[in-house]
Formats: sequence, structure tokens, C-alpha cells
Amino acid sequence: MEWNIYLSGEIHSDWRQQIIDGCKALQLPVTFSSAVTDHEASDAAGDVLGAEENNFWRDHKSAKVNAIRTKTHIANCDIAVIRFGDKYRQWNAAFDAGFCAAMATPYITLHDKDLTHPLKEVDAAALAWARTPEQVVEILNYVIQQQ
Amino acid sequence: MEWNIYLSGEIHSDWRQQIIDGCKALQLPVTFSSAVTDHEASDAAGDVLGAEENNFWRDHKSAKVNAIRTKTHIANCDIAVIRFGDKYRQWNAAFDAGFCAAMATPYITLHDKDLTHPLKEVDAAALAWARTPEQVVEILNYVIQQQ
Amino acid sequence: MEWNIYLSGEIHSDWRQQIIDGCKALQLPVTFSSAVTDHEASDAAGDVLGAEENNFWRDHKSAKVNAIRTKTHIANCDIAVIRFGDKYRQWNAAFDAGFCAAMATPYITLHDKDLTHPLKEVDAAALAWARTPEQVVEILNYVIQQQ
Amino acid sequence: MEWNIYLSGEIHSDWRQQIIDGCKALQLPVTFSSAVTDHEASDAAGDVLGAEENNFWRDHKSAKVNAIRTKTHIANCDIAVIRFGDKYRQWNAAFDAGFCAAMATPYITLHDKDLTHPLKEVDAAALAWARTPEQVVEILNYVIQQQ
Amino acid sequence: MEWNIYLSGEIHSDWRQQIIDGCKALQLPVTFSSAVTDHEASDAAGDVLGAEENNFWRDHKSAKVNAIRTKTHIANCDIAVIRFGDKYRQWNAAFDAGFCAAMATPYITLHDKDLTHPLKEVDAAALAWARTPEQVVEILNYVIQQQ
Amino acid sequence: MEWNIYLSGEIHSDWRQQIIDGCKALQLPVTFSSAVTDHEASDAAGDVLGAEENNFWRDHKSAKVNAIRTKTHIANCDIAVIRFGDKYRQWNAAFDAGFCAAMATPYITLHDKDLTHPLKEVDAAALAWARTPEQVVEILNYVIQQQ
Amino acid sequence: MEWNIYLSGEIHSDWRQQIIDGCKALQLPVTFSSAVTDHEASDAAGDVLGAEENNFWRDHKSAKVNAIRTKTHIANCDIAVIRFGDKYRQWNAAFDAGFCAAMATPYITLHDKDLTHPLKEVDAAALAWARTPEQVVEILNYVIQQQ
Amino acid sequence: MEWNIYLSGEIHSDWRQQIIDGCKALQLPVTFSSAVTDHEASDAAGDVLGAEENNFWRDHKSAKVNAIRTKTHIANCDIAVIRFGDKYRQWNAAFDAGFCAAMATPYITLHDKDLTHPLKEVDAAALAWARTPEQVVEILNYVIQQQ
Repeated sequence: MEWNIYLSGEIHSDWRQQIIDGCKALQLPVTFSSAVTDHEASDAAGDVLGAEENNFWRDHKSAKVNAIRTKTHIANCDIAVIRFGDKYRQWNAAFDAGFCAAMATPYITLHDKDLTHPLKEVDAAALAWARTPEQVVEILNYVIQQQ
Repeated sequence: MEWNIYLSGEIHSDWRQQIIDGCKALQLPVTFSSAVTDHEASDAAGDVLGAEENNFWRDHKSAKVNAIRTKTHIANCDIAVIRFGDKYRQWNAAFDAGFCAAMATPYITLHDKDLTHPLKEVDAAALAWARTPEQVVEILNYVIQQQ
Repeated sequence: MEWNIYLSGEIHSDWRQQIIDGCKALQLPVTFSSAVTDHEASDAAGDVLGAEENNFWRDHKSAKVNAIRTKTHIANCDIAVIRFGDKYRQWNAAFDAGFCAAMATPYITLHDKDLTHPLKEVDAAALAWARTPEQVVEILNYVIQQQ
Repeated sequence: MEWNIYLSGEIHSDWRQQIIDGCKALQLPVTFSSAVTDHEASDAAGDVLGAEENNFWRDHKSAKVNAIRTKTHIANCDIAVIRFGDKYRQWNAAFDAGFCAAMATPYITLHDKDLTHPLKEVDAAALAWARTPEQVVEILNYVIQQQ
Repeated sequence: MEWNIYLSGEIHSDWRQQIIDGCKALQLPVTFSSAVTDHEASDAAGDVLGAEENNFWRDHKSAKVNAIRTKTHIANCDIAVIRFGDKYRQWNAAFDAGFCAAMATPYITLHDKDLTHPLKEVDAAALAWARTPEQVVEILNYVIQQQ
Repeated sequence: MEWNIYLSGEIHSDWRQQIIDGCKALQLPVTFSSAVTDHEASDAAGDVLGAEENNFWRDHKSAKVNAIRTKTHIANCDIAVIRFGDKYRQWNAAFDAGFCAAMATPYITLHDKDLTHPLKEVDAAALAWARTPEQVVEILNYVIQQQ
Repeated sequence: MEWNIYLSGEIHSDWRQQIIDGCKALQLPVTFSSAVTDHEASDAAGDVLGAEENNFWRDHKSAKVNAIRTKTHIANCDIAVIRFGDKYRQWNAAFDAGFCAAMATPYITLHDKDLTHPLKEVDAAALAWARTPEQVVEILNYVIQQQ
Repeated sequence: MEWNIYLSGEIHSDWRQQIIDGCKALQLPVTFSSAVTDHEASDAAGDVLGAEENNFWRDHKSAKVNAIRTKTHIANCDIAVIRFGDKYRQWNAAFDAGFCAAMATPYITLHDKDLTHPLKEVDAAALAWARTPEQVVEILNYVIQQQ
């Protein structure tokens, strides 16, 4: 079985790459997907459909174009990893967690200890809380490879 | 038809009461539900099941007890109103939005204009964005009563 | 059993009222619902949330507010009646039919004979095609009351 | 991931071919499907099962045979592109849009600006509105290939 | 709780009435529904929509009108009782059983011992096989009333 | 796309082979599945689990073992072809049709003209009625290959 | 809202009555349901359909009759309470827990501390673990009544 | 078709290997999956995420990590084989059976005759009860290979 892993959340650190590299080193049978992580490209996703003067609608249009990608990948994933960093509000990450919870898709949260209180609802519906990408890799290795 | 309205999010202002009062004044056939909004009671929801030394597990236990209530009410609601204030991270509100999106439950977001960019994914899946409780009441009145 | 009947489509003739009156005369245990049929009010459904300079977004906003109502009523109905008149494009009526087909909700189409060719896909997924409101009433009477 | 794209709607212009060619030029990992676009063949789809004197039933039989194909492809697609031209009523396209909306399948509408008002409900449930096949190709390229 | 019981199958003996009377005598909180059991009325269900020269299409039209009723009642029932008599082919009864099986709706079959071999697939997916209406009543009484 | 075709019903004529051969001659991308068609083997499917003195339970046990296979293949098929011959009661074929109807799986019935009245409910939920295996092959060819 | 509470598991102590009494004392808006708790009646549930010489089939028949009741009540409940005592194997209780988990129905486990290791999978999918009926009542009171 | 077989339950005998070897000898097109069967590794599944002083939470954390694997494999399997040995309580096996029942996934139970009474609810929802791994292999061979 090839496992589809969706990587959701923070785009300002290299946690995705660390998980991808860690899984590659272990030769895990995994495929990764994710939202577009180039911030500017993501904000401009809808611009090709015509410029908007009103920022709300520019955001709206881009968010919907991005949703074509994210909904498809989340709906197809076996496991989601949802990362909360220490900056920004990252409501889209919590939104993805709620989506996974409703779809009964297992997800792992990845965040520091000082975020556990505000994330308690998100963690309660998760199947694991990791603090480091290495831990995520170890969990994936166990889940996929252990006899 | 009696409409079930779930009120999710911020618990530090009286937006819920404003919406409830506004609907009552219009005699709309609505029933409201919500998470427990007494912050201390909510944090202590699991304490009756035994004390925890580790705060993570206290939060975990309480969050799960609260989920018995919130999952039931969200699953039963016809419309959710999801409020983001200007303080705190309110990841549970975004989590509820993602849950509603996955369940195809219509939801209305309620937040100030300066939150539109970080909430663009949440707003894109919403069926309306309101800035004031009065606007929510007007939308509910239109949706339920207009001929 | 109280039957919920959703009346979708054309808003420029009194077909809804004829069906409602016909069912009332027969004392059928039915409740009717429908989109907002006041054309101007429907087009303005989102205006309370703020004016839009761009007509596309005004329409978009209003269509989403209307969807709060229509999705809820369609999801709750037992039978939909979907009316196509001889004017206008009425794509929303065909959209509702596709929605019902996907949800396995039985629906009856109501239209003249000269529309049967362009409506063949919509009629093929319907459980009945009626030409007059009286026929719809007779079908409802049979479905609900016949021993 | 191989993306399945369903192309629904107008059959009198070469928009399908333009999208297919555009995606091929970009070497996107996509597979296209569609209803039968040969109008005469489509109208005659049921004739092999026996001739019908009554045109309604000939249409009915053919529409059902065509539905074997279209339901399967729509149910299997990741993204639908739904095209409305300036001629004909194209209720089947709007029907497909409603079907996708109910199944939570992302879809992109493709139509001119002067159709935005009558298509507002269909566009409101879409994740993008494009005016040209080139825009659809750009959106697909972004959704599938962007890092 | 009010239990909805759907009574499917044979229309040439009074088994329905025996079950209804038996449940009434026990004052069980049940509501019964069923297809139209007047054979002629059922065959003519679609006639109000226009006469058909071709018997296949007359049957087709009537069967679809009847399906508005039967699909709704089966979808709403808590338990189906499916009766096979010793005459006629009664494929609609077996069809209803397959429908219930797919929907995970519990059903009880009611038929003589000499039909057990040809009905083995239908019985295998049933939760009980009864030979007499009295047995069905006793089962319903146990299921609903026993402490 | 590889199409999965489930062949249900009569086991006393070679209709399955005719369809398989016809599709092979056309090089259609199809895979066929079916219940076990060796009557004796099918009746004895459960014997390996221990002999039964009571024929009802022998049938029951075998029918359940067979259901492991049939439920899996029906759940995985894109199209079912359901054949009713002129002998036997074939309730399992009608059961399969009801199962497909509830799962929204397209199915084609295959039977002679003199069975149309007793099969009217089964045909009404089908997407095509064919009289010969050749017609089924032509329909499959059209559905799968036609441009 | 009236809450439906399903009480599953051990039948040899009075835990059900304690929960029912506790909720009544608090005037909670709850309705309780449960499997038949009279052990002998439950084992004999299928006897009315005919005696069985083979105990396996007697059990089988009774278990299926009981499933008519239990499946219906579990499918309708808002919350399940699942009790494991210190005697017997109580696999049906764990079976109900797995059923609830798959249906996303919130459940509370009720068992002593010395069972936590063998019940770890069952508890992990639960939303609360209580040791006493009083705790269950307090949780229900909080979930239903707390503001 | 490649069949996915999930092997649930007892980890203290070599029944899994016997089934795997038996299927390999018959060259059945099957893939097997299972929970982690190394007892110590399974109990320690969550330890990488941080040590726990409280055994309940250590179990809880490990059970959730294991659930990432088991939920995925059960959701993907075509058939589950669920084994109950004569030692331990094996509530997780019964939990898996309940999960399969709710998901309509066919399952085969594997246990000795003296467990039939306490397992009657679990067996009633199964499609076969086997006493030996050889019987399971024979059933799989029949289901997959028989013509």
C-alpha cells in the first residue's frame, strides 16, 4: 500500500521538507501532498481569472481556486499532518483539522507545547500530537512499517 | 420548520445574546445551541472523571467531554454562525468551520474586516460573511421568513 | 407522516399557488418550501452585508445567502417539484434537479411538451413529468393518500 | 496523482479540445472524460434497444443510456469543468453542476460575462469561473503543478 | 419512540391487516406504510400524466410514480417486513429487500418453508424469517416492548 | 479507465459468455465479475465450515459465504447487468437490482418482453432494458468507446 | 432538544437504573434505550420463529432478532454509554463501541480502573471514561444543561 | 482484482501466518494487513511522543497511534478475518467487528466452538464463522477463485 500523506499548515519553516526527507531516508511507501506553499503564488491563485479591486474578493477567488487543490488532496489522503507554528493565526490549519475530523481521516498535529491549551479541541480529535518533524517520521515509520 | 442554529466561537463578548435577542424580537422559529461558554466550566469539564497532574491530559479530557456536546449540536444544526473576535487564537472556531464544510452544513462567519485575509479559506467555504450580530439576524430573518 | 414538498424553478407564474391550493383542498398532510420567489428581494439578498460595485460579486453574495435557505429546504424535502417555464434560462431549476438526483431525492418535473428534448437528461432522472399543476396535485394525492 | 477531469456542457464549439491540448502541452497528469459529444449519436443512444414512435420515450431511453456513462465519469472525476455557451438551454450542464455540488466535487464554470446573472446559483457553488479555455488550463496547471 | 414499519410484497392476501391488527391489539407504538396495494390503481398510477399506447412505457411511468411513494417510505422506515406468497414472481419484494440491505435497514421476511431455497440470499441478509403474521407481531412486540 | 461490470442473475444459459466474448471482440477495457455460477458449488459454499442437518441453515451458511463475494463485487462495479430468464424465481437477481438502486450503481436489465410487467419496478430503476446479450454489448461499447 | 441515550453492556448490576434515576432527579431531557436486559428472554428472542436443535443456530437466530432492536436504537442515539463489568467477556459491548466509532456516535465507557489496559482501544475512541454511574450522570448533566 | 484482507484479533498464536501461507500456496491475489502484532511494540507505540507517568494515558496515546494504522487498513480492506482465542478479553477484536458491521465490510470470525454463545452478536453480523485457519483459506479460495 502506498500511503498518501497531506501536510497542512505553517508555510514559514521547513517542517514539510524534514518529514519528506525523513521518510525518504526510511524508504517509506508514501506520497506527499499539500496546499501551495509559495505564499505569493497562493494569494494570487485567482488573478488569472481577472483582477479584483476589492481585496476581499481577490482573497475569496484565490481561496476557492486553492480549495480545488486542497479539497481533492485532503479527500484522497490516508493521514494528514497539521502543523501550527508560533506565528500567524493559521486558521486554515484548524479548518483542515475540522474537515479531517468530520471525514474520519486520521490526523497528527505538530506544534510546540505552549500551544496545547488553545489547540485542545484540535488535539482531542487528533490521533497523535508531535512536537518535532522527527517524531512525525517515527510515527509514520511505525504505522506503515512495523510488523 | 424549526431551525437549529449553532453559535460557535468567541466567548468574551455578548454576540450570542444579541443574535438570540434579535431573533426573539422577530419571533423567528429558531432554537440555539452552542458549546459551553463559561470558560472555567469548560476547562474543567473532565475534572469530575478524576484529577490530572498533567495539564495536557486535563485539557484533553475536558475537550473530549465538550466534544460530546458540540459534535451533537453541530451534527443537528441547520445553520452555524462562527464568530472570530480580535483576541485569542480561536482555533476551535476554525475547526468547527472545517467540520461544517465537510458535512455540507451552511455556515455564516462573523468577524471584523481586518480578519478577512487570514480567514480567507474559512470565508471561502462559508455562505455569508457578516460583520455585526445585527447582520446575522437580518440574514436569518431573510432566510427563514422571506416569501 | 407529514410530507415536505420543495417547489423549485420558475417564479413568473402562479404554479406554486395552484399546487398549494390543490393540496389544501384535498387536505393532504404536506408542508411546502421554496426559494425566495420575490425576484428583487432575491437579487438583493446579500445587500445587507454591504454594497458591491461589481455586479458579479453582488450576485455571488446574494446567491450564497439564498443557498443557505435552498440547500436546507432541499436537503429536508421528501419530494421536489421542478418547474421550467417557456422564458428565461432557469439554470437554477436544472441545478436543483441535479442536486436532487445526487441526493436520491425523488423529483417531479413540470413543463410543457415542447421542452422535452432539451430537458431529456433532467426528465430521465425524474420520477414523473407533469404538464400542469393539477397533474402534480393528482400525483401527490395518489402518492400520499391512496390505499 | 493522475487527475480525472470531467468536461460537461456545450458541444458546438471546440472548448474541450482547447483544454485537452493546453494540458497536453503542459504535460499535466490528467485524464479527460465527457458525455458523448456527437449530437446525433447521443440522441440515438437508445435506438439499439428498439425503435420508439413516441419522441419523449426515445429521448428518455437515450438519456438513460447516456446517464450510464455520465454518472460513472462524474462520480469518478476529481474536477469538473462545466461550459455554458450562448446558444441552447443547456440544462444538462446545470444539472451536472447541481450533481457535483451535492457530491462535493469541485467544479469550474466556463462562460461569458453576459451569462453571470442567470448562472449566479451555479457560479456560487463553483470553485472558479473562467471565461476562456486558456484560463481553465492555467487554473488546472496551478492546482496540479504549483509547489 | 414511534416505530415506522414498511410492509412490502404480496398484495393478494390479508397479511398486512393481520399484522396491523395484531400490533393494535398490543398497543404497540407503530406506524405502518406500504406501496399502494390496490393492483389496478397501482398499474394506473401514471395514467393521469397522459395515456400510453406502449404497455412498457405505461408500466414504466406507473412504476416511477409508485417509486416516489415507496422510496420515501422505505427510506424512512425502521423495520421492513417483506412478504413472499406462493404465486406470482414478486420481484419488487426482492428488490425492496436488496434496497433495505444496502441501506442497512433491518428487515424480516415472511414466507412459507417451501420458499427457503430460492429465497436464501434474501433471507441471509434479513434479521428474521417468519412464517406467519402472528410471528411477525410477536417479534415486533419483543423488539419494541420487552424490557 | 477500466470498467468493472457485474453480471447478476440467471445461471442456466450462456448469456454471460456471450457478453464477455462480445466485449473481447471489441477490445473494450472491461473486467467482469459475478456470483459463483456453478450451482452445486454455490449451494455447497458453506459446507467446508461444517455439515448442517437442517437445510435452512445449510442454505443460510452458503448464502452468507457467497455474499462475501457478491457484496464485494457489486460494491466495486461500475455497471451491473441483471439477467432474468424464463425459469425459476431469481429473487437474488431482483435483490441485486435493489441493492444497486440503493447504491446509485447504474444497471442494465436483460430479459424477454413477456417479463416486462412483473419486472416494472426493477426496470424503472434501471438505466436500460435489453432483450439480448448483443444489445448489452452494443450499449457497453457505446457507453465506453463512443466519442 | 430531547437526547437519546443508549445504554450498552453489562446486565448483571443496576448501573442502568442508577443512571436513569440520576438523570430523572436532575430532570434532564433524556430518553433511554437499551438491548433487552432480561438474559433468558434475550437468549430466547428467536424461539417464537421455531425451535432449533443446534445451539449455534438458536443463538444466531436470537442474536439477529435482538439486532433489529439494538441497531435501530444505536443508529438513533445521540450518546451511548458502554459498560464493562468484571465478569463475562462482554464482546457485544465492545462490538457496540466499534459500531458507534464507525458511525461517529459519541460514547462514554463505564468500567473499573483495572480494565483500562485491555480496553485501551475502546477507550481511545470514546469521548469519556467514567468509573461510576454517578460520573456518567454528571457528564450528561454538564453536556446537556451547562450554559 | 487484488483483495485486501485485514487480520484482526489474537496475537499469541500463528493463525495469521497459517492463513498467509495457505493463500500463498494457492496463489490467491490477496494482500494482508493487520494491527502491529508485536505486543511490546504496540504498547509502546506512543512513547516516541514523550513518556507518560500515568499508565492510562500511556495506553491512550499508544492506542491512538495504533488507530492511525488500524483505521486505515480496516477502511481499505475488502474482507476482515477476526480471531478470538481462548485467553484474554480481546475487546479490540470485537470492536473491529462492530466497526466492520457499521461500515458494511464483510467479515469472517475465527474461534472455537465453546465461544459461540458469548460471541453470538459478533457472529450474527459476520458472513462466516470458521474454526480453523484452513477453513478461512478455503473460504477465501472459494470467494476469490471459484467460477
